[in-house]
Amino acid sequence: MSEPVTAAVLIIGDEILSGRTRDCNSSAIAAHLTGIGIALREIRVVGDVAEDIISAVNALRARYTYVFTTGGIGPTHDDITADAIGAAFGVAVDIDPRAVALMAPAYAARGIELTAARLRMARIPAGAELVESDISPAPGFQKGNVIVMAGVPDIMRSMLVAVTNHLRTGPKLNAVSIVVAQAEGEIADLFSAHQAAYPDVAMGSYPSFAEGRYRTELVLRCADPGRLEEARAGLAHLLAERELL
Amino acid sequence: MSEPVTAAVLIIGDEILSGRTRDCNSSAIAAHLTGIGIALREIRVVGDVAEDIISAVNALRARYTYVFTTGGIGPTHDDITADAIGAAFGVAVDIDPRAVALMAPAYAARGIELTAARLRMARIPAGAELVESDISPAPGFQKGNVIVMAGVPDIMRSMLVAVTNHLRTGPKLNAVSIVVAQAEGEIADLFSAHQAAYPDVAMGSYPSFAEGRYRTELVLRCADPGRLEEARAGLAHLLAERELL
Repeated sequence: MSEPVTAAVLIIGDEILSGRTRDCNSSAIAAHLTGIGIALREIRVVGDVAEDIISAVNALRARYTYVFTTGGIGPTHDDITADAIGAAFGVAVDIDPRAVALMAPAYAARGIELTAARLRMARIPAGAELVESDISPAPGFQKGNVIVMAGVPDIMRSMLVAVTNHLRTGPKLNAVSIVVAQAEGEIADLFSAHQAAYPDVAMGSYPSFAEGRYRTELVLRCADPGRLEEARAGLAHLLAERELL
Repeated sequence: MSEPVTAAVLIIGDEILSGRTRDCNSSAIAAHLTGIGIALREIRVVGDVAEDIISAVNALRARYTYVFTTGGIGPTHDDITADAIGAAFGVAVDIDPRAVALMAPAYAARGIELTAARLRMARIPAGAELVESDISPAPGFQKGNVIVMAGVPDIMRSMLVAVTNHLRTGPKLNAVSIVVAQAEGEIADLFSAHQAAYPDVAMGSYPSFAEGRYRTELVLRCADPGRLEEARAGLAHLLAERELL
């Protein structure tokens, strides 16, 4: 079996921390990475503060196979991600002719002037590869194991797709779930014993509470589909036996 | 003016990292803290892995006034938050008579047995204060500057309200926004100059893209409402002058 490939997501932007904007990029990236066999191990959200971005990038890139960032690569004064990535890697950040070559004709075709502000979006850390999107001519980039994407969700998704073919991936975890109309306390002993019987299958329980009723989703994850089905069927049997299903 | 009070949120749970469940607790906590004058500086999501929880808790509690955690305090084998908090603080975690006193009569009244699994929810690190909710008899707790809450959103919100009166708060930032039907590139120079003219007002721009159209929200934040209104009116005037509003 191939080695696990791991990742972290770093969301950059004051607007998430103030509660004004709800982040939807992290869950989209999480689902995408799970689907291609990359294990997301950590998500962080930091504000538009250079030292916070730099220290998060350096901590995460040392620890995981890949780091995916979103946000802070636009044309306004609060877009400081490219500079922060340059500082994290100790390399210069300048206007990149490859980025200008993408942006200049696209803007010209739309009659939009390539102002100094728009040229900020062509500032790329030395040694990075560009990551293009279908939507905006301004690129993201990959520097080392850090993939830097836009914060606008449609543009982010397009960049994530663009970079996917170049990523190393590991064993893909399959997942199945059983939902019971019970509080976790009803199934905890049984579920814990089942986990002990199948140490190679990761088992988690996710309770929710709505309209005065508890509901618990039991999720099983394993790379081997046969083994996963055996664990699922066994759990369903145990639950049925105790009239919990 | 009083000192800023800062916070981090730590979301604990494999289900967020797999992309199966979308976290809605962090944005609810973010909005609540902003509303009471606590500046949220960082959000982290880690899995149900003891060493990851311990190292995140220790990093965050040293850096911010408060740390709010959600998840991992239920009765199942993957609920390891109380033990991880105990380990982070170097204190024992045992069944707490105060928690049993809350739980035993509530369960008895509903005809539910206080099983070993349910008693796991009464395990509280030494020296912690309990944090009650209106919904579940199983409490959260506060140990030092770390507030440990349930992951189920309704229960989390109830615990957050319960703890709010005991929190130290700082200056409350007021926010106003102006929305323009423009890409960021159109307003970047003007906005950057306006930020330079009002260094005491935090200004951010948040682009979005839907149905083929760009839209940018310009957000201004300041504790002083008069100064904030002056900055807002000035920005509206500049945008109108250039026919960008």
